[in-house]
Amino acid sequence: MFQINDNYQKLPGSYLFSTIAKKVAAFSEANPDKSIIRLGIGDVTQPIAPAIIEAMHKAVDEMADAKTFRGYAPDLGYEFLRKAISENDYKARGCDIEADEIFVSDGAKSDSGNIQEIFSTDNRIAVCDPVYPVYVDSNVMAGRTGTYDTATGMWSNVIYMPCTRENNFVPEFPKETPDMIYLCLPNNPTGTTIKKAQLQEWVDYANKVGAVIIYDGAYEAYISEDDVAHSIYECEGAKTCAIELKSFSKNAGFTGVRLGYTVVPKELKCGGVSLHGMWARRHGTKFNGAPYIIQRAGEAVYSDAGKAQLKEQIAYYMKNASTIKAGLQEAGFEVYGGVNAPYIWLKTPGQMTSWEFFDYLLEKANVVGTPGSGFGPSGEGYFRLTAFGSYENTVAALERIKAL
Amino acid sequence: MFQINDNYQKLPGSYLFSTIAKKVAAFSEANPDKSIIRLGIGDVTQPIAPAIIEAMHKAVDEMADAKTFRGYAPDLGYEFLRKAISENDYKARGCDIEADEIFVSDGAKSDSGNIQEIFSTDNRIAVCDPVYPVYVDSNVMAGRTGTYDTATGMWSNVIYMPCTRENNFVPEFPKETPDMIYLCLPNNPTGTTIKKAQLQEWVDYANKVGAVIIYDGAYEAYISEDDVAHSIYECEGAKTCAIELKSFSKNAGFTGVRLGYTVVPKELKCGGVSLHGMWARRHGTKFNGAPYIIQRAGEAVYSDAGKAQLKEQIAYYMKNASTIKAGLQEAGFEVYGGVNAPYIWLKTPGQMTSWEFFDYLLEKANVVGTPGSGFGPSGEGYFRLTAFGSYENTVAALERIKAL
Repeated sequence: MFQINDNYQKLPGSYLFSTIAKKVAAFSEANPDKSIIRLGIGDVTQPIAPAIIEAMHKAVDEMADAKTFRGYAPDLGYEFLRKAISENDYKARGCDIEADEIFVSDGAKSDSGNIQEIFSTDNRIAVCDPVYPVYVDSNVMAGRTGTYDTATGMWSNVIYMPCTRENNFVPEFPKETPDMIYLCLPNNPTGTTIKKAQLQEWVDYANKVGAVIIYDGAYEAYISEDDVAHSIYECEGAKTCAIELKSFSKNAGFTGVRLGYTVVPKELKCGGVSLHGMWARRHGTKFNGAPYIIQRAGEAVYSDAGKAQLKEQIAYYMKNASTIKAGLQEAGFEVYGGVNAPYIWLKTPGQMTSWEFFDYLLEKANVVGTPGSGFGPSGEGYFRLTAFGSYENTVAALERIKAL
Repeated sequence: MFQINDNYQKLPGSYLFSTIAKKVAAFSEANPDKSIIRLGIGDVTQPIAPAIIEAMHKAVDEMADAKTFRGYAPDLGYEFLRKAISENDYKARGCDIEADEIFVSDGAKSDSGNIQEIFSTDNRIAVCDPVYPVYVDSNVMAGRTGTYDTATGMWSNVIYMPCTRENNFVPEFPKETPDMIYLCLPNNPTGTTIKKAQLQEWVDYANKVGAVIIYDGAYEAYISEDDVAHSIYECEGAKTCAIELKSFSKNAGFTGVRLGYTVVPKELKCGGVSLHGMWARRHGTKFNGAPYIIQRAGEAVYSDAGKAQLKEQIAYYMKNASTIKAGLQEAGFEVYGGVNAPYIWLKTPGQMTSWEFFDYLLEKANVVGTPGSGFGPSGEGYFRLTAFGSYENTVAALERIKAL
C-alpha cells in the first residue's frame, strides 16, 4: 500500500500568493463594478523590451527550419548564454565565475525550491524572518523543519533571524549554528540591503562555522546605492561557502518568460565532494533545460540595446517605488525599503494585523498588497506593496490610500 | 557543518545520455574527418510545424505590448491549454479527465523526476527492466532504492520486472508487492506496447494491492495498432490508482521547446489525502509555470492545422522506423519494436555487450546508438536505435551497418 510524503501534511494553508489570488477573485466576483489595483504579487507589468522580442522572433524562425532547428539543449544551458552571464554579471564586477559554474534554469523559484535537495535532511536551516516563503516551504516538504506551532507561526527546527524595525531589518548572526543560511538581498519583502562589508562578515561566518549560504540575488538590478554587493562573489571566500540564485524576472520582466540561473562554484565542497557535480547530476537527471527560444531571450538581455532598454524599465519601476514611498509617508505611514529594491514595506496602522490591513485595503481602496505575516512571524504588523504596477495605477492607488 | 544528500554518492557514473555525449565528443575530436550519424538519444530532427511557429510568433508579439503582456502564469497552466488537452487527449477518447486535473509543466523529464517527491521515502518502487533511467535515478536521489550492487547493476530495494525476448518484453506482475509502479508504454527503450486488456489487468492489480501507477505516455502518438490504449484512463478504475505523464517532445518535436503535462485525478487518494492537492502544492511552491509563449505553442498542437502537420511528422519518423527495422533484419539482426514506437531494439550480435556494440558501431560505422544496459541490467546484450533522424541519415546509417 503506497504512502504519501507526510511532510506535506504539516504545511499550514496554501502557498501565500495562491491565497491572495483566491481572496481577490472572491472580492472581484462580489464587486464587479470595482476597479482593483494590484500591488501585491511581485509581478511585472511592462512589456518585454524590443531587443529581447527581436531575439525571440529570430529564435522561433530558427526552430522552423531543419537546418537551424534545436532539440535538447546542453544539460547546463547554452554556452552563448552562460558566457554572457559570466562576462556581464561576474567578470565585469571582478568576480571570477566561469561559464561552466553557471546552471541555466526555468527560473529562480524552481532553483530556490530544488537546491535543498542536494543537502542532507539533517541540516538545520536559518532564514531571515520575514522572507520569501519558498525557502521554508520547500524545506518543510523535505522534512527539515520539525513541527509547526500555530500559536507562534514558527517551525521547531528552523532558526529564525528576525528582521524588524528594531534592527533596521538586518539579520544578525543566530545564537544557534545553522548548516544552511538563506539570504535574499536586496530582501523580499522588506526591501533591505546590507553593505558589502556586512555581507563579507556573513561569508566569513559561514566559512568559519561550515555553513553554506543560499544567496538569492533576484533583486540585484534595483541596487542604487554604492557599497552594496551585486553578487556574493564580490566577497572574499564566497566561492567556498555560497551558492547564488539569479532570476531574469525582475531585471528583464521575465515572470511569464521563465528564465533564471544558479551559480555553484567548483570550489564549494563538502568533505571531498563537489556540490557543482551534485547539482550537475540533479540537472542532468530531473531537468531538460530552458527552451532554446527563451535562452536566446536571455542572451539579448546582455546586448547593448537590451541593457539600455532594461535600464529604462528599472528606472520606470523605481519611479513607482519613490511615488509609493512618498505618498505613504504623506499619508502618515511608517515606510521602509524602496531605495535598492522594488518593494515598499510599511507598518500597519493602529495595531492592525497584516491580514486585517489586507482586507481593509482591498475593501476600502480596492488595492491589493501582501500581508507581511505571510512572509514569516516577524512580518506580522507589516505589509508589502510592490513597484511593479503601471505608473498610472501606482499614482491612482496612492490617491486612494491617501483618501482613506 | 552542512552535510550533503548522501544518496547522490550512491549513483554509479553519470546520467546515461551525458556519458554518450562525452564519448561521441571524444571520438569526434579524434576523428574530425568522420561524419557521425546520431540515432542515439531520442532527440527529434524535424523542425517545428508551421501552425506552431505561427502561434509562437503571435505570442511573442503579445509579450511586446503592455495591453497583451502576460506575467506569471496560473499555477497549474493556462486554461486555454488545459482545456485543449482535456478535450483532445481525454474526452475525445472517452476518458473523463477535466481541465483542472491537468498540470502543465516544462516537460515530462521534470515530472518523471519530481513526481516521487509527494510519496513516502518508505515506498518500494517497481520498474520495467530495461527502462528510461530517470525513474530509478530520481528514486536513488530520494533514498528509496537501497544499495547498488555493481556486479548485477541492481538496487537492493527496487523491484525489477525484466522485459526480455523470453517474455516478449512485456512486464509480469512482480512476486513482491510494490507501492509505486512505473510503466512506460509504448516502452522506452524496447518499443513494446501491450493491449488495452492487459493494461486493464495492471490497473486492477494496482487497485487490489494499493499501489500507484506512474504511467509515462510520452510515445503515445506513435501507436499504430488497434486495441492499444492511448491513455491509462481508458481503463476502468485507473482514476483511483494512476498518474499519467505526457510530453510534447515526441508528438510535436518539442525537445528544445519544453512542454509536458501530468494528470493527477481528483479521485486518487491515500487515506483521505488527495494527491491532486499535494501535486498542486508542489507546483505552487517549487515551479512557476511553463512560458506563456510555449503554452501557446502547445495549444497550436491541437489546432486543425497543427494536428494535420504533426500527423505527417509522425509518419515521417515511422517511415524511418520501418527503414531501420527492415535494414537491420536484412543485415541479419534480431530486431524488436518500431511498430507502435519510434524505437528499434536489437539484440547485439556475437555475444557483444551493449557498450562493446556501442563502441563497435561508433568506430566502424560512425553511427551512434544507445547501449541497452544503460536502461537497466536486463538491457545488457541489447541496443536501441531511434527513428528521430532525418530520412537521408537513417538510410545512410543503415547502408553503413549493412556494409559491416
